[in-house]
Amino acid sequence: MELLLPHPSNSSPLTVLGFLERAASIYGDSPSLLHTNTVRTWSETHSRCLRIASTLSSSSLGINRGQVVSVIGPSVPSVYELQFAVPMAGAVLNNINPRLDAHALSVLLRHSESKLVFVDHHSSSLALEAVSFLPKNEKPRLVLLRDDDVSSSSSADVDFLDTYEGVMERGDPRFNWVRPENEWIPMVLNYTSGTTTSPKGVVLSHRAVFMSTVNSMLQWSLPNRPVYLWTLPMFHANGWGYTWATAAVGAVNICVRRVDAPTIFDLIDKHQVTHMCAAPTVLNILTNYPARKQLKNPVQVMTAGAPPPATVISEAETLGFDVGHGYGMTETGGLVVSCTWKPEWDRLEPNERAKMKSRQGIRTALFAEADVIDPITGKSVKHDGVTVGEIVFRGSMVMLGYYKDPKGTAASMREDGWFYTGDMGVIHPDGYMEVKDRSKDVIICGGENINSTEVETVLYTNPAVKEAAVVAKPDKMWGETPCAFVSLKDHKGPVTEREIREFCKTKLPKYMVPRNVVFQEELPKTSTGKIQKFLLRQMTKSLP
Amino acid sequence: MELLLPHPSNSSPLTVLGFLERAASIYGDSPSLLHTNTVRTWSETHSRCLRIASTLSSSSLGINRGQVVSVIGPSVPSVYELQFAVPMAGAVLNNINPRLDAHALSVLLRHSESKLVFVDHHSSSLALEAVSFLPKNEKPRLVLLRDDDVSSSSSADVDFLDTYEGVMERGDPRFNWVRPENEWIPMVLNYTSGTTTSPKGVVLSHRAVFMSTVNSMLQWSLPNRPVYLWTLPMFHANGWGYTWATAAVGAVNICVRRVDAPTIFDLIDKHQVTHMCAAPTVLNILTNYPARKQLKNPVQVMTAGAPPPATVISEAETLGFDVGHGYGMTETGGLVVSCTWKPEWDRLEPNERAKMKSRQGIRTALFAEADVIDPITGKSVKHDGVTVGEIVFRGSMVMLGYYKDPKGTAASMREDGWFYTGDMGVIHPDGYMEVKDRSKDVIICGGENINSTEVETVLYTNPAVKEAAVVAKPDKMWGETPCAFVSLKDHKGPVTEREIREFCKTKLPKYMVPRNVVFQEELPKTSTGKIQKFLLRQMTKSLP
Repeated sequence: MELLLPHPSNSSPLTVLGFLERAASIYGDSPSLLHTNTVRTWSETHSRCLRIASTLSSSSLGINRGQVVSVIGPSVPSVYELQFAVPMAGAVLNNINPRLDAHALSVLLRHSESKLVFVDHHSSSLALEAVSFLPKNEKPRLVLLRDDDVSSSSSADVDFLDTYEGVMERGDPRFNWVRPENEWIPMVLNYTSGTTTSPKGVVLSHRAVFMSTVNSMLQWSLPNRPVYLWTLPMFHANGWGYTWATAAVGAVNICVRRVDAPTIFDLIDKHQVTHMCAAPTVLNILTNYPARKQLKNPVQVMTAGAPPPATVISEAETLGFDVGHGYGMTETGGLVVSCTWKPEWDRLEPNERAKMKSRQGIRTALFAEADVIDPITGKSVKHDGVTVGEIVFRGSMVMLGYYKDPKGTAASMREDGWFYTGDMGVIHPDGYMEVKDRSKDVIICGGENINSTEVETVLYTNPAVKEAAVVAKPDKMWGETPCAFVSLKDHKGPVTEREIREFCKTKLPKYMVPRNVVFQEELPKTSTGKIQKFLLRQMTKSLP
Repeated sequence: MELLLPHPSNSSPLTVLGFLERAASIYGDSPSLLHTNTVRTWSETHSRCLRIASTLSSSSLGINRGQVVSVIGPSVPSVYELQFAVPMAGAVLNNINPRLDAHALSVLLRHSESKLVFVDHHSSSLALEAVSFLPKNEKPRLVLLRDDDVSSSSSADVDFLDTYEGVMERGDPRFNWVRPENEWIPMVLNYTSGTTTSPKGVVLSHRAVFMSTVNSMLQWSLPNRPVYLWTLPMFHANGWGYTWATAAVGAVNICVRRVDAPTIFDLIDKHQVTHMCAAPTVLNILTNYPARKQLKNPVQVMTAGAPPPATVISEAETLGFDVGHGYGMTETGGLVVSCTWKPEWDRLEPNERAKMKSRQGIRTALFAEADVIDPITGKSVKHDGVTVGEIVFRGSMVMLGYYKDPKGTAASMREDGWFYTGDMGVIHPDGYMEVKDRSKDVIICGGENINSTEVETVLYTNPAVKEAAVVAKPDKMWGETPCAFVSLKDHKGPVTEREIREFCKTKLPKYMVPRNVVFQEELPKTSTGKIQKFLLRQMTKSLP
């Protein structure tokens, strides 16, 4: 049997790009993208993507294979199309968060050596400013994305050489798209939106993107023709793969420029949304929205990114959201661990069920291995739900590495064959994993390790608390002490620091009770909704 | 970016074997396998498979990595377990159809060089006879499978050195199962059950099996914890991958020794079956069963293997089966083309819908390419639904090749990078493929090509016809003429050859009307339910 080797007929490189052609064959006349007044079909989306890809490959724009093309914009139709069109031209797709400032943007453009940048018209001034910081020979060419929201066009727009529709018109809808020569070729470059100041460029191969996308489909048993709402931005790890998964099942993509509670409730109702992904913050926004209402039909929601407090899950489920919870990172393309429902949980009380669901869970079916290991011994921790170790991964969805960062790559992808996440967690006796803290967020108070998440979970059970984050405050005596930052629900009236501490004392060991409680109207967040703990940590330094 | 190469943390070989461990973690206490009085949980199945795999790897049985281990039996729990246990020991799994005769069986055992054969006790005499035909130094060791159906044990059983439970008891449930060194390593050897006398050994890699299994899950949007009925035998291309897919979703596997209409209706009702696969013949059996009844809950049925007549589909749907239709072959692990429902078909009349569904369809999402090409020019045929060509495939599910048959392998896996199926088909204007005939089954009558399937489809619309097959009858004048073999429904009373021909004349061009109609009580079939056209062709030679 050793004579039987791979042959061209059985070794086609794995890639998601073929999903589009197939969607056009099956769902050609059905809607692919809805946005304000725009309605597109899968046939149109297919031929528009081919047109863009053809112009990208042509001499007029001169992008070579393997070069980086960036996209700056929210979840609008053109940004969706570019998720296919850029790699279909053989280029590497680089989505950039439009909420960055011009300086940060220029750093990314320079680091990625982007040759061409598609810019949503709301970000045109920002992009021009960012490019102005770059040396002349490193300035990328800019193309303006207009979509249909033209009311707020800016004077900066005229400085763009090209518009998206112009690039489209020059393209050939019969273009023979560029299939990757092998499945390990880079397809995507995503800068992590972590809370550090030095973003890292995660490079994912065609194979990793394919596995991550298929994995996302399996997680939800995604049916044909779901109605998918873009509450999780496309620029955030390619929407965990749903930019491509929605083509595989002929979904209706409901685009959205701004994610806020009235818009979400309105779009769910108007389009009979069936599926959406969202950071826990978004669930929080929805459950705290004064005009929130019971959903007519259940909506599947997948959440991840931070451990969602059990109370947020159970409140969302009361409204009619069916919350799934998983865990992944930009480095793994999408979710690789998921809190798959166990049959015996059917018998639990709602609160207990939500608590089970707030754990990250177990490796997904397509992912090879996940473990929690002791940083000293390198061995698996006990499955006791108590012993904390670092979460490690191994499987097809793990990145190729960090772009231009061999040290960072080697530090996380180690010789023992594991990818080190930098997150700390435990494994429960039933094999389910729970993230306890980002490794750098552990608070060490008088030699005791405090998991900030545990304290936060308790704070969220206080009916007056809207948001909570706990960080380490430097302390001469104890090394560090836990310091809580809290925002309150409007209608609950004033609460004092002392009341919060008393509340915590009833539920936590004394050493874990926050020594300080700081009230804020709103906690500072990254553009993707993660609470910026590093800012909070800085603030603790000026506290008495 | 070219510096970023595969690393152990992102290049774990794709394999389905890890599904089992995960099923035990998530669905540990839930039923995995039900059969007469046997109830197993996923924890038990996991540890039983590890035990068997550990004994297989130990010196007591002495199987080396890459050696073939065969399994002869129906869809019973032990046969299910062996689908995991054999490859978990690093051996190659070879399922053999228990309905073969001793001679055919000995040919396969010799060809496969099987070292060990697990034999269901109903097949013990058969296996002993087959082994008696082999030279002494080529005789494999035999292990008896008893499961719980011990009423009919045979005297031959005592000649077996080992029993399955004995092998199990000697095993270690904490065995560290053998992960494939790379994903191209052979995992499965399946002999095709085609209608030829020289069966071919299809070798599938871990990668092909993985992709085929995941593809099967996506086709159905397979939910967690379905109830899966084994109407499609496990020995038939590993049940199109559902032997492993059911572990990925924690299904309840409803085992079944004999597939007949009363048993199927009974099991569906008793266990609230949600999913099953079946050859069109089985659908035919169900819809013609006098005591058939309306299903309480809809059952998803996937059918393939032969083009199902539209009338059979619509009759099955009337009973409450939701019929999906696809196309694949042993060489592709499972279905690689599927008649995915088009939104616009919702508006069609039931008969028209069934007609649409009787087409094989379009490549599945995980499969790279499928086409129909002109055998002379090698170019794609027109998408006109009329021009016939050979169906060709390219994608991860295609086999590694035929075992010990470099000529056969090279003839089907050609230098142009396509796998040639040997089946003829057309592509409709909407891109959907329809199998017109096995290439060798085309009837050429007076220079006109007749697709036997088209004539069969018309015959099936006659209310008296139960089964129909049309083959070429040699003819001095015309070269070949179409000859129909027909079995009739019992309750419809006698029908004459002339009546059948008159019926066809109202629906077909004259040249396509069968010149002969032969009535048979039952048409000859292969052990997997395919009508044996080569036998019918032989019979035509003795007709006037």
